[in-house]
Amino acid sequence: MVEISATLVSELRRSTGAGFVDCKNALVEANGNFEEAVVLLKKKGMATAAKKLGREAKEGIIESYIHGGGRIGVLLELNCETDFVGKNSEFKQLARDICMHIAAANPPYLSREDVPVALVEQEKEIASAQVTGKPQHAMEKILEGKMDKWYQQNCLLEQAFVKDQSKTVNDCIAAAIAVIGENIRIGRFVRFQIGE
Amino acid sequence: MVEISATLVSELRRSTGAGFVDCKNALVEANGNFEEAVVLLKKKGMATAAKKLGREAKEGIIESYIHGGGRIGVLLELNCETDFVGKNSEFKQLARDICMHIAAANPPYLSREDVPVALVEQEKEIASAQVTGKPQHAMEKILEGKMDKWYQQNCLLEQAFVKDQSKTVNDCIAAAIAVIGENIRIGRFVRFQIGE
Repeated sequence: MVEISATLVSELRRSTGAGFVDCKNALVEANGNFEEAVVLLKKKGMATAAKKLGREAKEGIIESYIHGGGRIGVLLELNCETDFVGKNSEFKQLARDICMHIAAANPPYLSREDVPVALVEQEKEIASAQVTGKPQHAMEKILEGKMDKWYQQNCLLEQAFVKDQSKTVNDCIAAAIAVIGENIRIGRFVRFQIGE
Repeated sequence: MVEISATLVSELRRSTGAGFVDCKNALVEANGNFEEAVVLLKKKGMATAAKKLGREAKEGIIESYIHGGGRIGVLLELNCETDFVGKNSEFKQLARDICMHIAAANPPYLSREDVPVALVEQEKEIASAQVTGKPQHAMEKILEGKMDKWYQQNCLLEQAFVKDQSKTVNDCIAAAIAVIGENIRIGRFVRFQIGE
């Protein structure tokens, strides 16, 4: 089995809009061949944004949100494909909502790929130490579940959206892509808090 | 002569409010002894904020500024000593002014101490290559002048303030310290621009 780099998975996610696990599986199936992985995702109907392959999201807006009279501040770059959509009110609302989410939920990372490998290893060790006296196969399942939970708490895209806890932030972005009809992605964000 | 670390100089600047060169010279004169350097700065009348030694600037506000309908965004943490001053309108105005300055002037660094050593070396080489056929002592003076100019262009605190080019950003902060009567410092800042 070929080694699939996180960068390649990340690239495929950006190109197709498909989820992390789907992209990784597609790349493994395609022996690391990017174009073939795109085709596989399309076939499986998972590449909701695959038709936008090659259309880069380099336009967009910078949005800010200040909370508590200046105790917390957030700066966000939300990207879309065209200047036109960058001025769209639904797109702007999405940017505002994500800023407020970041202020409240304080995510350390954007996505799984952004978590440092050393930290993932450390979290896995912690999770392992909490699970003892189980058969090997059950142990693996439990560990996977624990790590998924950790990612859901620490990665912005996987966090439950503060305005609607039944969705993740990524779900909200996917919904906006469907409505607006352009690829949308979070370029970067920062959150400052006084006295940190 | 003892080796003076940039961290120590930075610490002394924060404690006394005196300039980089003054702090470095005081530390050299004091053989690296921090308390002695503070006394020296006081004696020389350069430590305008020396009486505030030990009073940490951990309060303050997070301020943001969005320019060009979302093309550029700035997030700034401006610190003072008390929650009370953090709500002061002059303090808030200073935060707004600095945000606007950052949006316009795009400084890569806060102060000299924040510039990576490798980059300083590189800039020195470039400057050296531009100066040839001069005697050694003249060469050193010219190089120093060129590096000062580079710092003035790339370090927020040394940049000419966009609202009043006759002052540096640091001058404005020093003036605010004098008026408000509390230690004030820039905690951190970021600037996002679409399509960077």
